[in-house]
Parts: sequence; structure tokens; C-alpha cells
Amino acid sequence: MISRIEEAIQKNLCSSSIVDKFPESLRSAIEYSVFPGGARIRPTILMSVAKACDDDIPDITDAAASALEMIHCASLVHDDLPCFDNGDTRRGKPTVHKAYGENTAVLAGDSLIINAFSCLALASRHSHSRVANLTLCLSKFSGFPNGICAGQGWENELNIDLKSYHMSKTGALFIAATQMGAISAGHDPDPWFELGARIGEAFQVADDLIDVLSDDKNSGKSVGQDEKNNRPNAIREFGLEGAKRHLQDILAGAISSIPSCPGEGELAQLVKMQAAKMMEINESKIIV
Amino acid sequence: MISRIEEAIQKNLCSSSIVDKFPESLRSAIEYSVFPGGARIRPTILMSVAKACDDDIPDITDAAASALEMIHCASLVHDDLPCFDNGDTRRGKPTVHKAYGENTAVLAGDSLIINAFSCLALASRHSHSRVANLTLCLSKFSGFPNGICAGQGWENELNIDLKSYHMSKTGALFIAATQMGAISAGHDPDPWFELGARIGEAFQVADDLIDVLSDDKNSGKSVGQDEKNNRPNAIREFGLEGAKRHLQDILAGAISSIPSCPGEGELAQLVKMQAAKMMEINESKIIV
Repeated sequence: MISRIEEAIQKNLCSSSIVDKFPESLRSAIEYSVFPGGARIRPTILMSVAKACDDDIPDITDAAASALEMIHCASLVHDDLPCFDNGDTRRGKPTVHKAYGENTAVLAGDSLIINAFSCLALASRHSHSRVANLTLCLSKFSGFPNGICAGQGWENELNIDLKSYHMSKTGALFIAATQMGAISAGHDPDPWFELGARIGEAFQVADDLIDVLSDDKNSGKSVGQDEKNNRPNAIREFGLEGAKRHLQDILAGAISSIPSCPGEGELAQLVKMQAAKMMEINESKIIV
Repeated sequence: MISRIEEAIQKNLCSSSIVDKFPESLRSAIEYSVFPGGARIRPTILMSVAKACDDDIPDITDAAASALEMIHCASLVHDDLPCFDNGDTRRGKPTVHKAYGENTAVLAGDSLIINAFSCLALASRHSHSRVANLTLCLSKFSGFPNGICAGQGWENELNIDLKSYHMSKTGALFIAATQMGAISAGHDPDPWFELGARIGEAFQVADDLIDVLSDDKNSGKSVGQDEKNNRPNAIREFGLEGAKRHLQDILAGAISSIPSCPGEGELAQLVKMQAAKMMEINESKIIV
């Protein structure tokens, strides 16, 4: 599946008409923001759900997966900026603003957001209504007041509503992943909300554990950010062992929430495997 | 027309589902970025073209005009950031990052870009195909390699291609305005390219004149930026009188490029009035 994702993103990244002349450093920064990728976990979930729902128009699924990953990459680029996390490294290499300068990083993020929506629009010849729903779903979970922009925005508030913060900061794009997978294959997205929300919650706790337990080299990004920036973190809330038990509970809930669909069994297996991997990572980080 | 534009933007700004809890400072910064507006010139052009083409589905025209203005406002917020123009004032009040902080300004811009596309998607129930074409047009002239992101990106290049730079930095959203006006009313956008490109060119020259001749108080934003940032400017290229003659020629060309359509005569009158106003502003700025 990873090669399908990489091919789809490559095809969709600069899908608008080719022009003779363009600013080369921005082109390079956009590519640098997306390749090589991380685990591509959001498009993987999206495609897995689409496949479980029969994936009858693969071109739409490909466009949806690419658009979702572009939004995710854009959010990483902007979140790493000096005015947010001021991260030095990401995916094991210098962050975009470190490599290309702050203004190019802002523009690379903006371009990725815009290209995400154009790559969806280009797929509308296959099904106008699915693409309209995909656009609504992606924008809902990316922007304000429900999406990752709102999630980041909570960090500037004196009184954070923790549930809304986690839901929009981390949960949003996982809910987008499961729901967009269903929409891509012509299924109702509503029953897929729960699975996305639970996977998102699991990732939030796993990420909190990594932030506390890992070092920069092993995680591929700057760690210890939560403590440094005085941000809420599951370990602060539940303690180390409590957070690990909490993670296991959420993952079990995720599996049991999978809606009835043609590929239900296979999808459950996949989530189980991912869950096991997630628990393993956290065990090994404790040794590190 | 201005009240139709203001109502449309107000309705479309946060059109996704209402949630109980959201980060208040980000909501406030988004509103601050859009209201009170400037001249709303891009949505005015869009609506004027749509009306000249019969404006048969006003809800689509309203969504298109709002989306275009949101993208424009987002670009102002991001362009004012310290890593770009580092502007202190915009539309006669502190820039968004001065009023709300840099990270909220980045998020407000991101949210506006995303909401622009969601407001288009919400209009697709009126016509899926028009909205798909509007989305493609808006993304083309906003992103990379053709849009305003590319335009800003040129400023980081050692060798600027001046024609591409002006076309994408200023021309792009004016071309989007005329073409989106035509698409909103179900017309072919191609014949409307020329009018948008020429209006954009005229605004670029007018803006260059303002930057050189005005002071902060009269223009409502920080002036003298081109000289400060060593950017290309029509006065540097043609001299003061040459730039003014150039502006007049472009405006005459704009009027003669208006495609045949039901409201052709009225539209020509409107462009003539705008042109006269533009020349006047530049005359008065010379006295200032």
C-alpha cells in the first residue's frame, strides 16, 4: 500500500498546469516537506477503510489520500516554525524553515494546503458528489472551528478545553482519514467517526509517551517539547503506567468500533497489528 | 454591491458546523483579518462579471466572491508576517500578528485558506460542476506554481523572472476574479483571462505608485516596502511619468478586452469608473 500512496502523492503534488517558470526554491521546499515521508499513517488508514468498503473508484481514493497527507505535511511545516515549536529536526532532517528559511516554509505550507484542495477538485470528473463531500470533510477537520488549526489555536488560550484540544489537534485528521476513506468508496462516513477518533486518541497518548521517553535521534524530531512549552500531556495526567494502560484500552475500543463493511475482518487485523507496533515502540522507548 | 459582498462573506466565513468550544483568540483573529474590509475589489470584479453574464445562481456567485476574498485576506495576513514584509499596519489598524501574535496570525491565514475551499464545497448542491471548476480556478491562482504563493516565492529567488513574478503575485487573483465570475454564471472562463490580467497589471502599477508616493497614514498600510526590501517596482523601471502613462495604457486595454456578454456595456462603464478613480488616487498621492 505504501507504494500506491507514494505514487499517488507524487502524481497529485503539483497537479495543476505546468508553467515554464516558477520560483525554484519554493518548488524544492514543497517537495522537501512531503518526501521522503514519515509513516504515512493517515493515508494508510484512509486507503484501508476505502478498501474495506470495496474501493470502487481508486482514482478518488488516491486523490483523497494525497490531499490528506498534503494537509498533514503542511501542518508539520507550520507547526515547526519558530513562532510555534521552533523545531530543528523533523523526520530525521532539518525542518523546512531551517533548510529554506522561514518565509519559504510559510509559503510551502500554504501551497500544500491549496494543492490538497486542487487535487481533490481534479478528481471530480470521477464523481462530483463524492469529491464535494471529501472537500467538506477535509476542510472541516483541517480548519476552524473543528480542525487542526483550531487544535493549534487552543495552545494560545489561557483556559484550554482539553477534550476539544486533543480532538481537534490530533483526532481531527484521523477522523478525516476514516471518514474520507468511506466517502471515497461511496459509503456513509458517519459510522466511521468513532474509529478515527479512537485511533487519534491512541496516537496522542503514544506521541506523549514518545515526547517524554525518547531522544531526538530515535524519534526523528525535537522531543521534550510538551514540557518545554508547558503543554498538556497524558503522562502528566495519568502517570507513566497509567498512560500505557490508557493507550491499550483505547486501542481495544478502536478495534471494536469498526463498522460492518465487506472488508471488516481484514481491517480489524490491520488495526490490531498497528496497535501491537505502537505498544512495542513505547516499550522500547522506555529502555532508550 | 458592497452590502451583498459583506453579507456573503459574513455568512460564509465560518460556515462549517457550529461547535460549543473553540479557541476564542483564533476566532477573533480570523474575523479581524476579514472585517472591516478594504475596497473588496476582487469580489466586486467577480460579482460584476457574474452579473454581466446573467448571474443565474446567485448563491454560487456569493460563495465564489467570499472564497476569493478569504484567500486574499489570508495572503495579506501571511505577507505582513515578520518573515515577509514585517508590516505594522494594514487597512489602518495593527496587522494581525501585531494584534494577536505571530502564531495566531499563521493559523488565521491557514484557517481562511481552508474555509475558502469549504465555502465553495458547501455551494456544490447548486451545481457540482461549476463548484468543481471554481475550486480548480481558485486553487490554480492561489497556490504553486501559478498562484500568489508562487508570486511571493519569487521574492526569495536571486534571479526573478519579472513577468512571472507580477503575473502570479498580483495578476493571479484578478484573473481568478474575472474567470470565477464567468464560471459562477455558467460561462466559459477562457475569454475572461485577458481582462483579469490587465486589471491586475494596472493594480500592480498603481500599488507601486502608492508605495513610492504615499505615506503610511494615507495608504492604511506600511509604505516604502519595495525600496526597503529591494523589490522590483514600476517606477524604478519606467520613471514616475512613464509609470503613469503605462497605467493609462493598461486600463484602456482592459476595457477593450471585455468579452461579448449580456451586460458588456454596463461592465465597461464600471471598469472605466474604476480606472478614473485609480488615476485620481495617483494624482492626489503625488500632492501628498
